[in-house]
Amino acid sequence: MRIVWIDPIVADKPYVGALQAALDEARHPDTELEIISLPEGPAPRHLRYHAYEALVVGEITTAVYRLAAEADAFIIGCFYDLALREAREVSGKAIVTAPCESSIAIAAQLGNTFSVLVGADKAIPKMRENIRAYGLAHRLMSMRPLNMGVLEFQAQAERTMEAMLRQGRKAVEEDRAEVIVLGCSAEVGFHRTLQDELGVPVIDSALAPFKYAEFLAEAANRFGWHPSRRWGSEPPPEAEIREWGLF
Amino acid sequence: MRIVWIDPIVADKPYVGALQAALDEARHPDTELEIISLPEGPAPRHLRYHAYEALVVGEITTAVYRLAAEADAFIIGCFYDLALREAREVSGKAIVTAPCESSIAIAAQLGNTFSVLVGADKAIPKMRENIRAYGLAHRLMSMRPLNMGVLEFQAQAERTMEAMLRQGRKAVEEDRAEVIVLGCSAEVGFHRTLQDELGVPVIDSALAPFKYAEFLAEAANRFGWHPSRRWGSEPPPEAEIREWGLF
Amino acid sequence: MRIVWIDPIVADKPYVGALQAALDEARHPDTELEIISLPEGPAPRHLRYHAYEALVVGEITTAVYRLAAEADAFIIGCFYDLALREAREVSGKAIVTAPCESSIAIAAQLGNTFSVLVGADKAIPKMRENIRAYGLAHRLMSMRPLNMGVLEFQAQAERTMEAMLRQGRKAVEEDRAEVIVLGCSAEVGFHRTLQDELGVPVIDSALAPFKYAEFLAEAANRFGWHPSRRWGSEPPPEAEIREWGLF
Amino acid sequence: MRIVWIDPIVADKPYVGALQAALDEARHPDTELEIISLPEGPAPRHLRYHAYEALVVGEITTAVYRLAAEADAFIIGCFYDLALREAREVSGKAIVTAPCESSIAIAAQLGNTFSVLVGADKAIPKMRENIRAYGLAHRLMSMRPLNMGVLEFQAQAERTMEAMLRQGRKAVEEDRAEVIVLGCSAEVGFHRTLQDELGVPVIDSALAPFKYAEFLAEAANRFGWHPSRRWGSEPPPEAEIREWGLF
Amino acid sequence: MRIVWIDPIVADKPYVGALQAALDEARHPDTELEIISLPEGPAPRHLRYHAYEALVVGEITTAVYRLAAEADAFIIGCFYDLALREAREVSGKAIVTAPCESSIAIAAQLGNTFSVLVGADKAIPKMRENIRAYGLAHRLMSMRPLNMGVLEFQAQAERTMEAMLRQGRKAVEEDRAEVIVLGCSAEVGFHRTLQDELGVPVIDSALAPFKYAEFLAEAANRFGWHPSRRWGSEPPPEAEIREWGLF
Amino acid sequence: MRIVWIDPIVADKPYVGALQAALDEARHPDTELEIISLPEGPAPRHLRYHAYEALVVGEITTAVYRLAAEADAFIIGCFYDLALREAREVSGKAIVTAPCESSIAIAAQLGNTFSVLVGADKAIPKMRENIRAYGLAHRLMSMRPLNMGVLEFQAQAERTMEAMLRQGRKAVEEDRAEVIVLGCSAEVGFHRTLQDELGVPVIDSALAPFKYAEFLAEAANRFGWHPSRRWGSEPPPEAEIREWGLF
Repeated sequence: MRIVWIDPIVADKPYVGALQAALDEARHPDTELEIISLPEGPAPRHLRYHAYEALVVGEITTAVYRLAAEADAFIIGCFYDLALREAREVSGKAIVTAPCESSIAIAAQLGNTFSVLVGADKAIPKMRENIRAYGLAHRLMSMRPLNMGVLEFQAQAERTMEAMLRQGRKAVEEDRAEVIVLGCSAEVGFHRTLQDELGVPVIDSALAPFKYAEFLAEAANRFGWHPSRRWGSEPPPEAEIREWGLF
Repeated sequence: MRIVWIDPIVADKPYVGALQAALDEARHPDTELEIISLPEGPAPRHLRYHAYEALVVGEITTAVYRLAAEADAFIIGCFYDLALREAREVSGKAIVTAPCESSIAIAAQLGNTFSVLVGADKAIPKMRENIRAYGLAHRLMSMRPLNMGVLEFQAQAERTMEAMLRQGRKAVEEDRAEVIVLGCSAEVGFHRTLQDELGVPVIDSALAPFKYAEFLAEAANRFGWHPSRRWGSEPPPEAEIREWGLF
Repeated sequence: MRIVWIDPIVADKPYVGALQAALDEARHPDTELEIISLPEGPAPRHLRYHAYEALVVGEITTAVYRLAAEADAFIIGCFYDLALREAREVSGKAIVTAPCESSIAIAAQLGNTFSVLVGADKAIPKMRENIRAYGLAHRLMSMRPLNMGVLEFQAQAERTMEAMLRQGRKAVEEDRAEVIVLGCSAEVGFHRTLQDELGVPVIDSALAPFKYAEFLAEAANRFGWHPSRRWGSEPPPEAEIREWGLF
Repeated sequence: MRIVWIDPIVADKPYVGALQAALDEARHPDTELEIISLPEGPAPRHLRYHAYEALVVGEITTAVYRLAAEADAFIIGCFYDLALREAREVSGKAIVTAPCESSIAIAAQLGNTFSVLVGADKAIPKMRENIRAYGLAHRLMSMRPLNMGVLEFQAQAERTMEAMLRQGRKAVEEDRAEVIVLGCSAEVGFHRTLQDELGVPVIDSALAPFKYAEFLAEAANRFGWHPSRRWGSEPPPEAEIREWGLF
Repeated sequence: MRIVWIDPIVADKPYVGALQAALDEARHPDTELEIISLPEGPAPRHLRYHAYEALVVGEITTAVYRLAAEADAFIIGCFYDLALREAREVSGKAIVTAPCESSIAIAAQLGNTFSVLVGADKAIPKMRENIRAYGLAHRLMSMRPLNMGVLEFQAQAERTMEAMLRQGRKAVEEDRAEVIVLGCSAEVGFHRTLQDELGVPVIDSALAPFKYAEFLAEAANRFGWHPSRRWGSEPPPEAEIREWGLF
Repeated sequence: MRIVWIDPIVADKPYVGALQAALDEARHPDTELEIISLPEGPAPRHLRYHAYEALVVGEITTAVYRLAAEADAFIIGCFYDLALREAREVSGKAIVTAPCESSIAIAAQLGNTFSVLVGADKAIPKMRENIRAYGLAHRLMSMRPLNMGVLEFQAQAERTMEAMLRQGRKAVEEDRAEVIVLGCSAEVGFHRTLQDELGVPVIDSALAPFKYAEFLAEAANRFGWHPSRRWGSEPPPEAEIREWGLF
């Protein structure tokens, strides 16, 4: 099985290294993993701002379109779940997952309620809207900001852990969350310690969409549960794409 | 990995045979599967009626409590998802899944909308309430009854397939469902033909919670994502259980 | 009129005494009241845990099925409203009420908003889900835990009152609740003092479902407003019940 | 106990007669009933139009304010539930009920779902908004118009019954309603025949708020469950009313 | 274009002066503005209480009915948005707007979330219900009371500004509101200073419905986008109004 | 006032001509209008598919970023409302509107309910999700497809009008919509005839966001109601944009 992780930013070495290590350790023996980052220039180094997302939505979708035939699943590596609808449309038979959607789906299996630890207040409105669209707003107890930049999580691991512990504890004890979700895929590598300290499951939002993708791709291969291609999931016609030179 | 399917009725040979075959073919090589049925007398032969469910909620929960230490996951084999909250409370480190919840979680990954083919009108209000509680009511296009008894699905395979095709086609073409969910775990064995005919993914509600359980149990073992035991997920104290002779 | 209160636990003397006294004082002259407790062994002494509920769902439903012809109404005496759907299915022409549903229906008539004083945090997620299913989540301001066990309410009346006053005051003054609901039918006997102190109506969740049952049973007798028996409310066929030896 | 039914229109003899007879037969022996109609001129003869409602909101509220001390409960006799919030504010210790709110509260106890038979399409948007505000929109299967004027129900009883049967049957058989609600208090007198024909409970929206008022007023007298007077339910100060010569 | 502001209380000089000045400055050159207050006696001097609203609903609706042919738009000058449905029914081709509805529509264009500064706690439940009915409850972060009477806003301008700054700051910094709405049309004249201090847009709820009315009336004149007169928006027949001597 | 309409596709002459004419006729005398189309190659000729949207999200956002200082408002000319959040983030003091959001905001002022006439079934799920996110799903009666391509609306005007009349009539008469919304900004030019035929307001989704933009830009200029820049609306820092060479 071949799974492609799309890192929707310019490659950031410490993060990609940590991610590669975490996913490699987590994958099934027969899962082949590729991580794709984007070229500097068009793409930014983080996606804190929605306008930055805008700059890579086309590239993510194009990558999925081009690699659709060679992959069983794609993961869009950002908790904003950007380009999810667009990428799914052109993924052919391949599955597409995204961190927020997968993480809260798993959280909902492990407890009645969950809280999300996000990097910054900035992220809250869009994430809240996504969670509402996914149907789980009534189980979200709080979104607590770590007040850190995306690039700082790996670079300042100690500070990250400290902030996660402080906000995670408040989420569990004050907001009564039964599960914690790490609301940035760059927060990879911290979940286990946090989980041991807090005494509740802590969902790593890099592992969650990766394993969800593996699971769904296996189901697709076994049972034919490939993405629907009817109604809103109808893909653009190949002839038109070629004629207009798109993607 | 050891997974226990709890068939919450008196063993019905044709169904259990079909189920065992389907799950055996679907399981990972290292997944050990056990199917438990209930003894006649207390338990009925189908669960169409909610009062029948009442008769087995205690037995399901007791089974999960007793086997919790020896299993990685349990599946409650009825699309009513009965005893789900109760069983999860005493499953210890083991995962518990159920057909409706798992099936619509998968359906939501494969299309924007879904319809459910249920055995009878009788089932609709409770299932609709469950789907609303799970947060996906806004994506449910319709629930269409096959007008068949639970025990007839396997016994009258041809009639079953015909009814599924007729209602499934209406669900896709008239109600604009992008994915079909088979709303009874006794509808096992029909999804592939239906899927080929209808041209949209058809989620088998026996396979769905089984593979979801396998997936979550693997994640639990790898990442420590066992069920939360805080707040609403707090289990009863062992001392009290022993003192009162419960389970 | 004959009304049966089903106390879904092993008889706890102080509580049953207080309950009997309160209901006796509250009943219409022509209402005949019977309180049924369950036999020790299968049944626990409190229902704080959902797995404990599981142990009595069958017994509650069986009791309603067996007594349906002789009663005008049943009350399921626990604020979790357990077995409500199941019992209603086999109650024949008799009404079935439950504490949470009845209490918040009354609260919604007396003010714009309400808060619930529950025994423990444990209870909150299930009760919140029930209130959401009943359609009144937008009027619930808070659920505040008394941090007491169910069996302590009557045994430690002074401590109970103190905790109720403290949390009730916060619910009114900080959470802006206009009505208070006592979220456990074992909290019987405290509402009047609390109400005088807090200056807002305090709904006793033993009296509420009892009087609601009396009211609905009278309406059933006068106007023929017995439970619907169509669609999701269709009861199991007597022939099947007999053949399988159920209930 | 003294209950005042406010007929928010100019007295229409056939209707008031039918209403008086129905309520008299339904009341408790110790319930004293008064029906108040409004004087022609300001008040219209029916309230199909919302602008007509506007003309009587002040009169209804004034009547409740003036009679508050002498009554245990008021019913606002129109399925639009007009002036409900306003009247409740000045009812002092007296209960105020209204047809739509009471009828669907009872319907929700008797089945999973309900449909409303309204006089005309005109009424649907406001009633739908009320039902959504009351929290029961997810249980409303349909609103079906009888295409009759309010004044025709009593005057053309045969045509009324025929329309009710036709639309009621569709509501039950096609829309899968388990309970029918008659969406106009002028539809009084038809529920029993309809109920016998349709085989599901049919809630008369004159009887429903009347008996609900009786029930709540008894609870108020027994348990002190009078309307809350905090926050949004705070009444205007007497001094200000007197100073400004209001009501 | 002719726009009529209906001040639904007895004329309060300081407020009407401030309002007239603010609207005059804000109007298009070709907009003719008239402010109508109500005669003392029936009408109160403020509308804090819902029963006071009841006293003027008929007058507001009557005024709109009578002036419909001569005006392009009406504004109902109270943040309770009272009589909105009623007035719209008889406004003929004229637009009717109201402060809460218009203000939050604008706020939703300027930020993800908003908070409302209300005069008193009293107002919160009705306003919250309105905002829920308008569909924007998920974007409302908080309603914060200024603890001032409606008549004090203009009379005690310094105290008003101080309270607005204190509560507005909390709404922005603690509740994370991106936009502030002034929840009383008598709060006119303060928005600019507040906006400069808080650094977020502050919607004045007198200017908002006035400019919204101007905008919609222009669109009505240009594009024929007059109010719908079908279904729930059908007006009462003129013949009936004349026959019964209404309005 | 300067308003920029961003046509998010390759310039299609008939459509741009019709659009320019319609907006020119509709603008205020002092409104300066510019219509920007995108260069062929990256951009497609229509946006029926979500993957096509992905290709232009970056360009739309970049255009808004670059022109922010010179414009008072932008309109994103597609009923999918794509790039709305992204563009708003970098619009500085300028307003950004979009067809769906503006059209249903206006529709909600003119009637209780509305239906949308969309080009094709394909569009329904995303539009439905948008309308749900905007909070007006409870007022949407239906989305009816015209079964026409975006490029055909202007090219085959007679067929377009015929389809609109057929589906519009069903929306009004069968679905009980009080207002019709044309769900594609390429449907410009048809609203007036349709409106005359159907007898209800028909919202043109090119005129709607254009006039909404004009209205909001005027309010921004007059009252300082520029977009919030706090929390989720915080823009990316200029220094970072320059350093990374973005936009």
